[in-house]
Amino acid sequence: MKRIVVLDSTLRDGAQAQGISYTVEDKLKIVKRLDALGVDYIEAGNPGSNPKDLEFFERVKKIEFSHAKLIAFGSTRRVGISVEEDANVKSLLQAGTDAVVLFGKSWDFQVTDILKTSLDENLKMISDTVRYFKGLGKEVVYDAEHFFDGYDSDPVYAVETLRAAAEAGADSLCLCDTKGGFLPADIHNITREMVAKFDIPIGIHCHNDIGMAVAGTIMAVQAGASRVQGTINGLGERCGNANLCTIIPTLQLKMGYSCIPEESMLKMTTVARAISEISNVIHDERAPYVGKAAFAHKAGMHADAVVKNASAYELLNPEMVGNERIFLMSEVAGRSAVIGMAKKVEPSLTKDSPEARLIIEKLKEMEHEGYQYEGAESSFELIVRKILGKYHPSFELRDFKVIVNEPAHANERNSSAMIKVRVGDQEEITAAEGDGPVNALDNAARKALSRFYPSIHEMKLTDFKVRVLDSTSATAAKVRVLIESTDGEEVWTTIGVSTDIIEASWKALVDSIEYKLGK
Amino acid sequence: MKRIVVLDSTLRDGAQAQGISYTVEDKLKIVKRLDALGVDYIEAGNPGSNPKDLEFFERVKKIEFSHAKLIAFGSTRRVGISVEEDANVKSLLQAGTDAVVLFGKSWDFQVTDILKTSLDENLKMISDTVRYFKGLGKEVVYDAEHFFDGYDSDPVYAVETLRAAAEAGADSLCLCDTKGGFLPADIHNITREMVAKFDIPIGIHCHNDIGMAVAGTIMAVQAGASRVQGTINGLGERCGNANLCTIIPTLQLKMGYSCIPEESMLKMTTVARAISEISNVIHDERAPYVGKAAFAHKAGMHADAVVKNASAYELLNPEMVGNERIFLMSEVAGRSAVIGMAKKVEPSLTKDSPEARLIIEKLKEMEHEGYQYEGAESSFELIVRKILGKYHPSFELRDFKVIVNEPAHANERNSSAMIKVRVGDQEEITAAEGDGPVNALDNAARKALSRFYPSIHEMKLTDFKVRVLDSTSATAAKVRVLIESTDGEEVWTTIGVSTDIIEASWKALVDSIEYKLGK
Repeated sequence: MKRIVVLDSTLRDGAQAQGISYTVEDKLKIVKRLDALGVDYIEAGNPGSNPKDLEFFERVKKIEFSHAKLIAFGSTRRVGISVEEDANVKSLLQAGTDAVVLFGKSWDFQVTDILKTSLDENLKMISDTVRYFKGLGKEVVYDAEHFFDGYDSDPVYAVETLRAAAEAGADSLCLCDTKGGFLPADIHNITREMVAKFDIPIGIHCHNDIGMAVAGTIMAVQAGASRVQGTINGLGERCGNANLCTIIPTLQLKMGYSCIPEESMLKMTTVARAISEISNVIHDERAPYVGKAAFAHKAGMHADAVVKNASAYELLNPEMVGNERIFLMSEVAGRSAVIGMAKKVEPSLTKDSPEARLIIEKLKEMEHEGYQYEGAESSFELIVRKILGKYHPSFELRDFKVIVNEPAHANERNSSAMIKVRVGDQEEITAAEGDGPVNALDNAARKALSRFYPSIHEMKLTDFKVRVLDSTSATAAKVRVLIESTDGEEVWTTIGVSTDIIEASWKALVDSIEYKLGK
Repeated sequence: MKRIVVLDSTLRDGAQAQGISYTVEDKLKIVKRLDALGVDYIEAGNPGSNPKDLEFFERVKKIEFSHAKLIAFGSTRRVGISVEEDANVKSLLQAGTDAVVLFGKSWDFQVTDILKTSLDENLKMISDTVRYFKGLGKEVVYDAEHFFDGYDSDPVYAVETLRAAAEAGADSLCLCDTKGGFLPADIHNITREMVAKFDIPIGIHCHNDIGMAVAGTIMAVQAGASRVQGTINGLGERCGNANLCTIIPTLQLKMGYSCIPEESMLKMTTVARAISEISNVIHDERAPYVGKAAFAHKAGMHADAVVKNASAYELLNPEMVGNERIFLMSEVAGRSAVIGMAKKVEPSLTKDSPEARLIIEKLKEMEHEGYQYEGAESSFELIVRKILGKYHPSFELRDFKVIVNEPAHANERNSSAMIKVRVGDQEEITAAEGDGPVNALDNAARKALSRFYPSIHEMKLTDFKVRVLDSTSATAAKVRVLIESTDGEEVWTTIGVSTDIIEASWKALVDSIEYKLGK
């Protein structure tokens, strides 16, 4: 089983993505996740271009790595100065890593028109810098920026730049498609040629500007590249980098290469989601292997067939990558898919039970109103309970009133809520303040209910999502609120829909509380 | 220039995507967009599996097509009955299209284990059905479902199924990677073999389960396939279908094939966005060619280089696909990128103006609070105006109070807002109701201001997005609200951030109104 070395660049190239801005804390969290996943290298920043990165390299020293090696990223020396006096080189050394990625130019146009120097000076910049770091005992990965563009423009010179790095002692060479525009077949052919030319390992680094970063990477491996660079979830500048969450399972589970420890593969989905969360980006639910939709079945025909035989419509068992198969509850979903979900509540339910028809009708009605139980399985479960007569509400809302004042009084929260609930034959009225109307209402509801249900204190809301359904109605649009809650043992998600965000939030909150109290 | 025929399946396979549920209206809107884009075929539904589709086929007859041909999709006849008595075949005929896609099984396992019939009967099902539709004068595209799995399992039989369709008169054969798990290199080799074996056109239909649907499609074309199937934005079941918005520009602008009329390419981004909007899915801003990030530059070094020479970091001129280059305003953005934006307000501004430093400092401060001006350029413009002393507020908020009641009184809207504003030395106090607190506030603000600024009536909010920034604080989390507005001539987007959704919405609303009144 051929070993493929994985260099993760989420913290360096991934951090270039639109909308991403990591704090040092974020970076440390990501480093731990990547180490647990078992990648070989964590490229963790460019100390020369970002001063925050130096603080990170200081603090990361306290982390014990179980598998990965930290690697810092920097440029070859600048034009016309010695390596020793280059400020970026000094910052790179300050990172204190045993290994460094050095990037240099391979494209004659970049040398003459952007750097404005001679082709010879560029070769010297490469070999001087590589030799300097090798002299200090560092492992050197040489990244040939714009390599494929360079090869396209002047193949002889592009190869000379690689040779300059190799002869100066680089431990491996990485071919970069920096603009992300090369076709996988061309990447394959050019990589094969470089693998034949050099006796040190060849790596590949692709960008996704024509949607083929994963394919380019895989085909470079098929051509003999033994190192891949990419990022978790394909985060990166413009259209992103090659997505390691797609590449690693494909190489390891479908093609028979070895990338990460076998048991780590089970963490793939969790790591991908955690890094979306830390990066504060919406996780791509359509992503191969790690998206929620990757093993989701909707069309009636397909879902029925999957029940019969999973391999008919699935690439692999979703558990192999820590994901799960789901059957979407939608108007075209086969009855068997819906019933499969409902069986969690009532195992004796069958496709032909009269309750099955009622559940499906209710589902259609709710979908028509804008509900979608994909991702809000706990609210779906409550609907099933209601239809089966297994729902016993823990409380009843009498009324609430929420008031928002602007400007707020100094040092006071701007929202307050008054709520009256009934439990059994007792009523409780109370009020609470909050940051915003939903928070005030949440606080007031818990306060009122805690007298009857002290266990409500175990429960905590962990996520709050708002989706505008009909954005053309602007502020009068219907909104769908999803609330994720946890009691430390279980995580559940509930939904509410209304043209009023407060009402939608309230519905989701009620479901969340009822789910908790019904457990 | 070789012609590649494009079959769009957004309305059929795309409609299988998680979260999508098209009304007949939606479908008609999409049809018009696709026709304007100039695809050859619009696969518009499966009348046998979805009764809503028959209504659609009735209503679509009123549309005059300028380029595209409508094509309905259906299965080969069922096991053991004649074509004439098959209900799905009847529905397919009822669609009344001149062309049909017929899909059949190519994988022996699917025949014996899912259909539970003999391999011979499956061949008859294919040839009977194709011959029947040919006999009625229809054009027939034969979709070989699971073709690559079939070829993998029993290549001789898989080819026989194609031959059954071809000999019965099919006009073209489409090879489908239904599970989406084949490597582009394998798709290339198998397609090349089929192109050599058959003298009718060969098509390709890929799914994205290993993230290579686009690559598989492109490599099939390189192997001689002359027809591609896919969907706009890659919408589709699980991880989606091959993305036509990536494939078409790549084939036509980078590889020299001809897919759609040259002038239609300029509509690519608009069509992609419009279809995301109609589909009610978040447009993928990282999508090649048609995402907002596709030509976005963030890293200081890169952005500076792009200013010097676009071809250094861009695949093609974004205008060729109706998109635009943007420079992201972020903490690592080069000063020149920010200044480039600010120059719209004050053309004399340079990188070294003292105002430039003030703008960048303000930007960092706002980003720290959770603002992000990527996508909210109008709010950014207002900040620049403020710093340059070019901002003259049209009004001043004295205060507002928003009240939400639950349950609402019968037939009444549940929210009301009272607002007091000052314009010059005059004050106006008024109140309005609304569906939810933000809508009530929006209505009240317009009502109060319309006395002073009648042009406020021209302005309409067209989109309202809410992003929870720190979801672990749940309902007390900071939220970022983006409001898109239009006055029929221009579209602008503004932003507000607060832990209170009402306050965040208010900030975005104020910016939107000020932007309009400052025009």
